[in-house]
Amino acid sequence: MRIAILGGTGNEGFGLGFRWAAAGHEIIIGSRLTEKGADAADRMFELVPEGNIKGTNNPEAAELAELVVLSVPYAAQKATLDAVLPALEDKLLITVVAPTGDKASRVWRLPSGLSAAEEAQQQVGDKVRVVAAFQNIGAHHLLNEDHELDCDVLICGEKSADKKVAMGLCEDAGMRGINAGALQNASAVEGMTSVLIAINIIYKAKGAGIRITGL
Amino acid sequence: MRIAILGGTGNEGFGLGFRWAAAGHEIIIGSRLTEKGADAADRMFELVPEGNIKGTNNPEAAELAELVVLSVPYAAQKATLDAVLPALEDKLLITVVAPTGDKASRVWRLPSGLSAAEEAQQQVGDKVRVVAAFQNIGAHHLLNEDHELDCDVLICGEKSADKKVAMGLCEDAGMRGINAGALQNASAVEGMTSVLIAINIIYKAKGAGIRITGL
Repeated sequence: MRIAILGGTGNEGFGLGFRWAAAGHEIIIGSRLTEKGADAADRMFELVPEGNIKGTNNPEAAELAELVVLSVPYAAQKATLDAVLPALEDKLLITVVAPTGDKASRVWRLPSGLSAAEEAQQQVGDKVRVVAAFQNIGAHHLLNEDHELDCDVLICGEKSADKKVAMGLCEDAGMRGINAGALQNASAVEGMTSVLIAINIIYKAKGAGIRITGL
Repeated sequence: MRIAILGGTGNEGFGLGFRWAAAGHEIIIGSRLTEKGADAADRMFELVPEGNIKGTNNPEAAELAELVVLSVPYAAQKATLDAVLPALEDKLLITVVAPTGDKASRVWRLPSGLSAAEEAQQQVGDKVRVVAAFQNIGAHHLLNEDHELDCDVLICGEKSADKKVAMGLCEDAGMRGINAGALQNASAVEGMTSVLIAINIIYKAKGAGIRITGL
């Protein structure tokens, strides 16, 4: 697939792009600045010389892609989506955003009472399907290709077909995707990011993750 | 320990009491009605003939115990705590409550914006320490003593010492307890109950659970 990663210069988006490029997907790294996107593409190309990778600004990245991944800090979510809105129509938007407040180890409840994923869905409207995934994946695991990812990806969204696409991308990145129900369930999954940060601090761990058992 | 289980006639509280009784704890099953508490104690005694088990009403159970476990539906949380309030002073209250709305498979956000555990803490005041635990444990696993519990218990609360007590009770019930940070993190953990219900439905599973990896 031709995948745009908005905010793909950040650790999480870059790590996902790296794994997807290595799996044969075409990756377009988006950034606020065209040049930063291009620089990140150069860095990724060094890691995956056989990869089909380019970098540009977010709106162009979204325009060129079949599927768009949103991987920016929550504070930049609204402005980033505003900037790419016309390019999203009829596309699947996978959001990786997990909002954390001043104290990242404490679950932060957004003033809207919604999850960041639902806020994104409200903003982009009915013509864009939003799926939440990869909220709980530590970025530093992604860049180590030999590192087995001992965690599952919880996927929330309204349409099974869209969640299946996200599941395929989980597999391509070396993880198991789990259909975790409706988009509003993203509020618990996003909150688990803070729980995992708390666990990392308390247990002096680097990459606590979640596995779903009993399936 | 002498443990009161408010709402111990329900599946979750009964299952925990059963495991703790088998581990040698003294169990006092509390119910709204004295007689129902006594009946449940009789049932538990049949399962654990060597157990030290009694049943009574919630206020008496809380009065007699060193440690109180709240295991009622969210709708009954406020009234139950009101009825036992004087007996809770200076005790540890472990709440098992996980609120679910009309559609249990969708994360339900309480109108207060808080977790049920934080609402409980506000209600009982500073003289009672509230810890949230066991939100994500399927009741039907607990009663099958031979059934290995392939899941962790996420424990949220303010004081490490209190969370250590809860961790000990996890071990006594055959599970690993994980310190999951501050009490407000219970909002994500409570929400995960709905996520697990969704996963159970989608995957036709009976007892999906959570494991923390990477520690």
